[in-house]
Amino acid sequence: MTSPQPDIVAIGDAIVDVIATCDDAFLLEHGLTKGSMQLLDTAQATSLYAAMGSAREVSGGSAANSMAGVAALGGRAAFIGQVADDQLGAIFAHDMRALGVAFDTPALRAGPPTGRCLILVTPDAQRTMNTSPGASHELTVEALDEELIRSAAITFLEGYLWGPERPRAAMLEAARIAHAAGRAVAFTLSESLCIPGRRDGVMGMIEDGMVDILFANEDEVLHLTGSATLQQSLDALAPKVTTLVVTRGADGALALEKGAITEIAAIPVERIVDTTGAGDLFAAGFLTARCRGRDVGGCLETGAIAAAEIISHFGARPEANLRELVAL
Amino acid sequence: MTSPQPDIVAIGDAIVDVIATCDDAFLLEHGLTKGSMQLLDTAQATSLYAAMGSAREVSGGSAANSMAGVAALGGRAAFIGQVADDQLGAIFAHDMRALGVAFDTPALRAGPPTGRCLILVTPDAQRTMNTSPGASHELTVEALDEELIRSAAITFLEGYLWGPERPRAAMLEAARIAHAAGRAVAFTLSESLCIPGRRDGVMGMIEDGMVDILFANEDEVLHLTGSATLQQSLDALAPKVTTLVVTRGADGALALEKGAITEIAAIPVERIVDTTGAGDLFAAGFLTARCRGRDVGGCLETGAIAAAEIISHFGARPEANLRELVAL
Repeated sequence: MTSPQPDIVAIGDAIVDVIATCDDAFLLEHGLTKGSMQLLDTAQATSLYAAMGSAREVSGGSAANSMAGVAALGGRAAFIGQVADDQLGAIFAHDMRALGVAFDTPALRAGPPTGRCLILVTPDAQRTMNTSPGASHELTVEALDEELIRSAAITFLEGYLWGPERPRAAMLEAARIAHAAGRAVAFTLSESLCIPGRRDGVMGMIEDGMVDILFANEDEVLHLTGSATLQQSLDALAPKVTTLVVTRGADGALALEKGAITEIAAIPVERIVDTTGAGDLFAAGFLTARCRGRDVGGCLETGAIAAAEIISHFGARPEANLRELVAL
Repeated sequence: MTSPQPDIVAIGDAIVDVIATCDDAFLLEHGLTKGSMQLLDTAQATSLYAAMGSAREVSGGSAANSMAGVAALGGRAAFIGQVADDQLGAIFAHDMRALGVAFDTPALRAGPPTGRCLILVTPDAQRTMNTSPGASHELTVEALDEELIRSAAITFLEGYLWGPERPRAAMLEAARIAHAAGRAVAFTLSESLCIPGRRDGVMGMIEDGMVDILFANEDEVLHLTGSATLQQSLDALAPKVTTLVVTRGADGALALEKGAITEIAAIPVERIVDTTGAGDLFAAGFLTARCRGRDVGGCLETGAIAAAEIISHFGARPEANLRELVAL
């Protein structure tokens, strides 16, 4: 389905989303902060799953959602991530390949099961994510397909995978391989940044020049830089990366390149059903447009269109024909 | 969640639906008849799954969907069906219990995996079902909870499970237990009736007085009786059961009791998205209303409301608050 030379190869969590609706009282009762992501151990995951409602299962994972978006937009996408040799792992692999995303990381035959993210969607369309990462945090340097990374125009790394040691080492090695081959490296901060002790490492990677394109939302840049205002955050981060992309929800998005700022408004959505995957699809649109030679405004607009599609329905994988929507 | 004395206990396939959209050309290419149900062996299921698009997984099974509907309507429901001790089996069990359906059939520790139904939804909202029954056809008489069956007002049997020998024996035994306790038995024909050699057995069960309430669609009654017209089919079947309920899609539904016919129109639906589960939810509405003492017209109307909700979205489990919609 995919060319041997992908536009983008992503490294991220290989996870199946388990999506149920709930009310605000349920979040309170279980001590969950609306809109956040938290990691669960097996006992916590079992207990929360038992309490939550009837669910639907859809393949997920932040960077994996982005690659599903790239493929839906007509780009050539590949994915590296760790599943177990179980039913959910087979579902994840099927869905990636069915969308035209090259996915060949061998399944783990021993160890934890394929990761799951218990996603609770409240009536205000906010999603609260509870991740039981399972096999996905067992990704090692050995799982990297070096030739694939060398051949891709952009290597895209997921912040959620920055926490556990072995996947972090794999991502740093992937960035080294990409840069040695003259390719670009993109990084998406993800909320996992808020986990104590993680900020310095991420900032260090950015200061070492390992990140060319940095994706973040407003909260994430504030948190990463420790600044009081968005402007201060932008001033601190922009000189360290080639392209800084900040999504601002209903306030649109902006990009900073060579000292110049480009801003766009959000695309109006008739009914926001579930915000899961908005950032993932924004990155998909931006990166696909960049690989097609669009200017930075066009990249932001493509991201906004892809994000608007994903929040208009449940789940973080595209349903409409994105390729027709954006006409790259 | 449920009372020890359920209104309805169902025996049926315990299956997870794997739902993807496709175009008419895909059905043609894979030799599938639109709107039909076919059984797949493992090799066929693997091959069709590999060819079909990215999917969402939702717990399914015809009678299980009906029990999900009964619970959503405020009725007390229980389910007997066979899953394997695997991830999809755990998902099926979770979803039943999360909906308030009592489900305590122990998972099979050896043998085939939990059953799956590969459902292809075409743009005209028709569903074409391809069932890999797995563990679900391993149900035996030993899995029956006799006390549960004796206590339920209605025991509801699924036609799809009539084919394989052991589940058929279990259903016949359940009907015997229910009648010995003075309870009613309902049976839903299901398309599996069209499988050669099955008609005589089902007709025999009906002629033996084992079925009090018979659910069927128009095609199914024609097929079962071998009659040329609906009227002839009704004339042939009505004397053999207490209540004959026939759904007619956009033409509404009818019930025959003691020689009297009651007819209703279909409920208009703004946009039909996926017809999967329409018959299952119709039965849920009819049976729940009956347990609440509604007359036959009220039972048909409740069935029609529940069916209208289910065809307005993907999947065969209710999403809206059915209890508020019907106000039984």
